[in-house]
Amino acid sequence: MENSHPLFTKHADTIEAALTAIAERGYWSAYPESPSPKIYGEHAAADGEAAYRAYLHNDFPLKDQPATIDWVSTERSPFGVDLDVRYPHPDVDGLLAAATAAMPAWRKAGPQTRVGVCVEILARLHAHVFELANAVHMTTGQAFVMGFQAGGPHALDRALEAIAYAHREMTRTPASATWEKPAGKGDPLRMTKTYHVVPRGVALVIGCNTFPTWNSYPGLFASLATGNAVVVKPHPRAVLPLAITVLYARQVLAEAGFDPNLVTLAAEAPGEGLAKTLALRPEVRIIDFTGSTEFGDWLEANARQAAVYTEKAGVNTIIVDSTDDFAGMCRNIGFSLTLYSGQMCTTPQNILVPAGGIETDQGHKSLGEVAEGIAGAVAKLTADPARGVELTGAIVNDAVLERLDQARSVGEVVLDSVTVAHPTYEHAVVRTPMVVKLSADAEDAFGSEWFGPISFIVETGSTTESLRIFGKTVGQKGALTAAIYSTDNDVVLAAEEAATLAGVHLSCNLTGGVFVNQSAAFSDFHASGANPAANAALTDSAYVANRFRIVQSRRHV
Amino acid sequence: MENSHPLFTKHADTIEAALTAIAERGYWSAYPESPSPKIYGEHAAADGEAAYRAYLHNDFPLKDQPATIDWVSTERSPFGVDLDVRYPHPDVDGLLAAATAAMPAWRKAGPQTRVGVCVEILARLHAHVFELANAVHMTTGQAFVMGFQAGGPHALDRALEAIAYAHREMTRTPASATWEKPAGKGDPLRMTKTYHVVPRGVALVIGCNTFPTWNSYPGLFASLATGNAVVVKPHPRAVLPLAITVLYARQVLAEAGFDPNLVTLAAEAPGEGLAKTLALRPEVRIIDFTGSTEFGDWLEANARQAAVYTEKAGVNTIIVDSTDDFAGMCRNIGFSLTLYSGQMCTTPQNILVPAGGIETDQGHKSLGEVAEGIAGAVAKLTADPARGVELTGAIVNDAVLERLDQARSVGEVVLDSVTVAHPTYEHAVVRTPMVVKLSADAEDAFGSEWFGPISFIVETGSTTESLRIFGKTVGQKGALTAAIYSTDNDVVLAAEEAATLAGVHLSCNLTGGVFVNQSAAFSDFHASGANPAANAALTDSAYVANRFRIVQSRRHV
Repeated sequence: MENSHPLFTKHADTIEAALTAIAERGYWSAYPESPSPKIYGEHAAADGEAAYRAYLHNDFPLKDQPATIDWVSTERSPFGVDLDVRYPHPDVDGLLAAATAAMPAWRKAGPQTRVGVCVEILARLHAHVFELANAVHMTTGQAFVMGFQAGGPHALDRALEAIAYAHREMTRTPASATWEKPAGKGDPLRMTKTYHVVPRGVALVIGCNTFPTWNSYPGLFASLATGNAVVVKPHPRAVLPLAITVLYARQVLAEAGFDPNLVTLAAEAPGEGLAKTLALRPEVRIIDFTGSTEFGDWLEANARQAAVYTEKAGVNTIIVDSTDDFAGMCRNIGFSLTLYSGQMCTTPQNILVPAGGIETDQGHKSLGEVAEGIAGAVAKLTADPARGVELTGAIVNDAVLERLDQARSVGEVVLDSVTVAHPTYEHAVVRTPMVVKLSADAEDAFGSEWFGPISFIVETGSTTESLRIFGKTVGQKGALTAAIYSTDNDVVLAAEEAATLAGVHLSCNLTGGVFVNQSAAFSDFHASGANPAANAALTDSAYVANRFRIVQSRRHV
Repeated sequence: MENSHPLFTKHADTIEAALTAIAERGYWSAYPESPSPKIYGEHAAADGEAAYRAYLHNDFPLKDQPATIDWVSTERSPFGVDLDVRYPHPDVDGLLAAATAAMPAWRKAGPQTRVGVCVEILARLHAHVFELANAVHMTTGQAFVMGFQAGGPHALDRALEAIAYAHREMTRTPASATWEKPAGKGDPLRMTKTYHVVPRGVALVIGCNTFPTWNSYPGLFASLATGNAVVVKPHPRAVLPLAITVLYARQVLAEAGFDPNLVTLAAEAPGEGLAKTLALRPEVRIIDFTGSTEFGDWLEANARQAAVYTEKAGVNTIIVDSTDDFAGMCRNIGFSLTLYSGQMCTTPQNILVPAGGIETDQGHKSLGEVAEGIAGAVAKLTADPARGVELTGAIVNDAVLERLDQARSVGEVVLDSVTVAHPTYEHAVVRTPMVVKLSADAEDAFGSEWFGPISFIVETGSTTESLRIFGKTVGQKGALTAAIYSTDNDVVLAAEEAATLAGVHLSCNLTGGVFVNQSAAFSDFHASGANPAANAALTDSAYVANRFRIVQSRRHV
């Protein structure tokens, strides 16, 4: 590889391994997911927490970022703590001008250098992973270990995956070529051609409250690696994880001799609607968004100057037909419902069970027994408050609480949600999952997303009807995940065909340590881009290939 | 490669060579561009013309296509001949239902089989290339040799290029993978994952009058190879080339055991606006369009359910700074203006020349001398009507004639357009190119596209001003091509930087047998997707990667 930048050379093995991983899609990870001191060192956890605490009640150290009008503070943790960190609040003209000005040198540095610098940013973030983990934990309400894993190593893996795809697509066309066309008996026509990878423009990343890093990193790094400048607009209640990200990104960019304004933070005042303002600016040519269907649809309809990548709401579904491990099935589903109080975009909502019950290794189980089995698994996981909160974390906003109240009245409550006192945080808002039984004609209820710890056992006429309902709801409302439980391979194959037609990824018979709401970077795709829940997948070629264009020049030799 | 379909095996060498060509982007072609009997055989030309003639004054042989309401005939050749071919006029519901029903088996056949079948379709079309060439020649007004080359081998090369990109992107992710995650001291977690390539839905290809095959084939074959069914909506005045294409595509599909309704023709009655109707249908998930900016913008704004690829108007520009081959430069530019009477989307329009003239191998040349040089080259090429029409062909529609009249009054006519009597076709509408001189402040005139044999010599203050005007007009209105003439490498590099920023491909110092309005498949990109003239390039990864999605399933081993 020509013209290797020292940072590309430094990370060449990691990049090579990531390129192999996306080609093979087996298991691979670059950043250990265990927060164990054996891996991260004895002081890492304490140092990270101290660094996190140093940000609180302070101006965030982004004083070098240009075009700051004033400073804003908007974060209150779901654990009931005000973070009181103040962030620079930018003048949009100035911020976009700075981002635009930063791009030409970054473009000219070429794909390899940009990829090397991007992976160095990941390494820097990884070196501060406990600081990041505390910020994710406290802003999202995720329990600490989840905040560490999803917010740190898993987010970094997804970022590296996006960078690997970007590298692959940018280097797919050679930097130059010689063209020699035979011309009968005369001399051949000879030309030299140069192919420039050019960015689209400023990329806007709009973060969400629940997974500020995990959902933002793929777009952020895919855009940055392909030559664009990135403006990061965090959710007002989850600014800190992305502020820390921007801080270290700017640090690495500056150290590598690039303009740090290639990555900037656009924090907003309460109710400002800064995302809308930025999204309509002509300089903004790429937008990545995770959040509501309403705003995602608005972006797609209105930000016409930009390539818009959205992840929106969906109705994740499990089809229960039969199982040879009833206890394992209930445990597995129960865990999926409990994790982060069902506040993952991948948490199952609709569990479709035939009215006549199902066959299992424990004999026939009635629909009521299936519902009780799943509800019992949730109840067991949440029985002890101290252990329960390490799975559930806290509730991210009041809308979830309101939805819980509403859900109680739409059907028969199999397991009610209860309020839990958090052993550490007095004002934390903690709720256990609710399970509600519905009939197949209650489509008004189960036909759209109830974000939060709410799931429905839907009584269907048969697995055939379950498949029909599954295809219909996912076709109309989308889904990020789906699962089938069946001992009959023909039923599994029918579910796979229905999932393929509906365009949703399917997990089959999960009874052990893999959960439907978890996807593994470099192997599992997150979202498919083939149903209304998202117009793109994390992370594939289509996700990166249109973030840059190739502009060529040619001349005779 | 597993599961090789006989047609994939048959074309494996061609596919392999095409994959190598897109990776290296040197010279390569699969279909000889010379219509010589030495290559195509003694009878090919006569047989092809006879086959073409057999279509005239007849129902086109697409009687097997479903959902035909009645038959329509809309073609009058620019050479002044009514073709009087009648085409099936479809019921939209029925046509889209048939297209949709054809997809599942095509999807399940997998990438390799689809690619094999698609290349077989190209082979079949190539076997009928003279038939196709006559149809392109007569419907577009291109001279025969150009109709043969651009409408036949060059279109087939672009189609193969698109298929190669589709193959590469579809096989980028493996069909399946084994995932094995270490789990501490316990058994690792083991899963088998299957990745399905799934089509988006029905693809709509909207053809244009001037290059019915060349501009339609990349989208048609990229969509078909990636599993989608394709509805081809031809321009009402250039139906026959695409009807022939659909005919042979259906023949090959049926022979290979697939539903021929994977490719259908949607001919329209005059003024029907069938493209709009089809474009808004929910079944239609991909649209490829070549034509006016107005309709392209409408599609992008309104066909929100589809991925829309558009090629629209632009302002192609040549910057003349200096040259070491004045005669060669004038000849080269003159040829570009004359070919197909400037009716290529790649024909230069604005020729920016400093008011003080330029330095050349023949000494200093004033702006007037540069203008005369270029005009003289055009005049020489068109002086003899019989030879001239073999370059110019005929004028595609009356709007071009009206534009010629208008152009005469916007500046100083350096070379007027003249009416030429075609030696063969009495009613052919033939006009030679017009060259008009404008000042740099006449941006109202040169700032937008004048499609047809109209070009402007724009008098600028300096090459620096030329570069500024170039960047501005291309930035605002887009361009498909640009060229620079300069003996100063710094000027060439400045032009390259300006072209890169404006997002337009640049040709440098063309004085021989390569012309700015020609691009070579497998080496040159056509359009960049980086300026308003087109939102995509023919053909790159981004052009194909979002025509399919990957949907996965996973299960424990």
